[in-house]
Amino acid sequence: MTKLRNEGPIGVFDSGLAGLRVMRAISDRLPREDIVYLGDTARVPYGTRSAQTVVNYAHACARTLREQHIKILVVACNTLSAVALDALAGELLFPVLGSIMPNARAAVQASSSKRIGVIASSRTVLSGAYPRALAIQDPEAQVFVQAAPLLISLVEEGWLHGEVPRLAVREYLAPLAQQDIDTLILGSTHYPLLMPLIESEYAALSGKRIAFVDSAQAAANDVVRQIESKQLATARADPGKLRIILTDLPNDFQMASRFLGEDVTQLKVSAVDI
Amino acid sequence: MTKLRNEGPIGVFDSGLAGLRVMRAISDRLPREDIVYLGDTARVPYGTRSAQTVVNYAHACARTLREQHIKILVVACNTLSAVALDALAGELLFPVLGSIMPNARAAVQASSSKRIGVIASSRTVLSGAYPRALAIQDPEAQVFVQAAPLLISLVEEGWLHGEVPRLAVREYLAPLAQQDIDTLILGSTHYPLLMPLIESEYAALSGKRIAFVDSAQAAANDVVRQIESKQLATARADPGKLRIILTDLPNDFQMASRFLGEDVTQLKVSAVDI
Repeated sequence: MTKLRNEGPIGVFDSGLAGLRVMRAISDRLPREDIVYLGDTARVPYGTRSAQTVVNYAHACARTLREQHIKILVVACNTLSAVALDALAGELLFPVLGSIMPNARAAVQASSSKRIGVIASSRTVLSGAYPRALAIQDPEAQVFVQAAPLLISLVEEGWLHGEVPRLAVREYLAPLAQQDIDTLILGSTHYPLLMPLIESEYAALSGKRIAFVDSAQAAANDVVRQIESKQLATARADPGKLRIILTDLPNDFQMASRFLGEDVTQLKVSAVDI
Repeated sequence: MTKLRNEGPIGVFDSGLAGLRVMRAISDRLPREDIVYLGDTARVPYGTRSAQTVVNYAHACARTLREQHIKILVVACNTLSAVALDALAGELLFPVLGSIMPNARAAVQASSSKRIGVIASSRTVLSGAYPRALAIQDPEAQVFVQAAPLLISLVEEGWLHGEVPRLAVREYLAPLAQQDIDTLILGSTHYPLLMPLIESEYAALSGKRIAFVDSAQAAANDVVRQIESKQLATARADPGKLRIILTDLPNDFQMASRFLGEDVTQLKVSAVDI
């Protein structure tokens, strides 16, 4: 029974395609595990919706996730993690890992000054999830939160270079640069795609170099730890398979290759109506 | 029977809140008519989805629209008009007016050179709906189409001023400015909110002033014509009432006031789960 369960895939959920970076990071760390990715591309972005609507979407996605016989679920979507993790976990019979707490843990480890910045979706910011999680990890941490919604749209549309994203990044980072933070949590799966601009603009604004918490790495670390502690590792020795399930097949699915870091045309991709 | 039908409201549908400008334009022209607005704010934007998903959303919205006893429906959403108008009209027993053909008609009337530009969502551009509609209105028209998705996100997030939207507008308009158009269709309900930037950047790029087709005015003209020709006008003399139904109540509903041009807190707003 245990053995059968261990041969199930790891599930990764995100609202769009950017969580494929999380799938990539997990696969790099656990190359023998099968991984199935569910992207709610028909209803991305989540970050501008009300909490109730995100909860409704979590329930809808839970139905699809149950059918995949996954052994553990990684919720890459920060917005869903912030407002609907309990609702999702309550419907599922396997462990569900959010992305807020792993990011908070990584930030506290990276920070010396305990002055930590966060950029995230509007809904994640309104939820207060990051200040709560950081207070649990380190009650002395001072937290500065900035909603950065347009950066999500820029990444969704593949607009990663040039003056438009550079100025948008600069405008969002300016208030954080005044707070003398030493660590910035990238609180959406989209932001790491803008990492070169975020790094250079922050340095230009503050004259300082800081640490960045990329939720893909933090999530991969968390799932490795959980797979070990819950003894969920596969016994197979051959390379794991990656599968992608989307609620809408987008025009420009090649964009997914940018997130995954490999040619997605080689992968099994299916559409599901939820 | 006819009389009863005539006292029903005019329906206006859009994916988000920007179609409230269309409601405003119709109400200005037909102040005694009741108008009910349905905004699919839980699933906006439509313009980045596949055609099949937009059709699915059209069917879902049709159910809600049927319950409103409207006498005519104005589909303010260009994306839905481009790919799912037949699907929507097929489910409804009242006249359904799209936004592509009224815009094409207005553009052909405004243009002397017959060189007409269009900015629209990615899905509207991929559908080919504007070149088809313009060819019907004037077979000699030359049409130049540009997808401008980020402008929709900028308006959704209320980022209407400054360098970020100015440079985004400039980058989208540059290819059109090289085509020596004399008329530009604003093929999304969002774009007119950026009109000051669109006008000044186009003039800066081309050194010329051109005509702009605002879909709110074109749609209002069309509904006035249809209400007259189909003898659907209300017999009441008192001012019509405006109602708003949304699939998700957004954080920042005050943004709706910007679209509607009046304080939305005075209006009846309800949420519906579809």
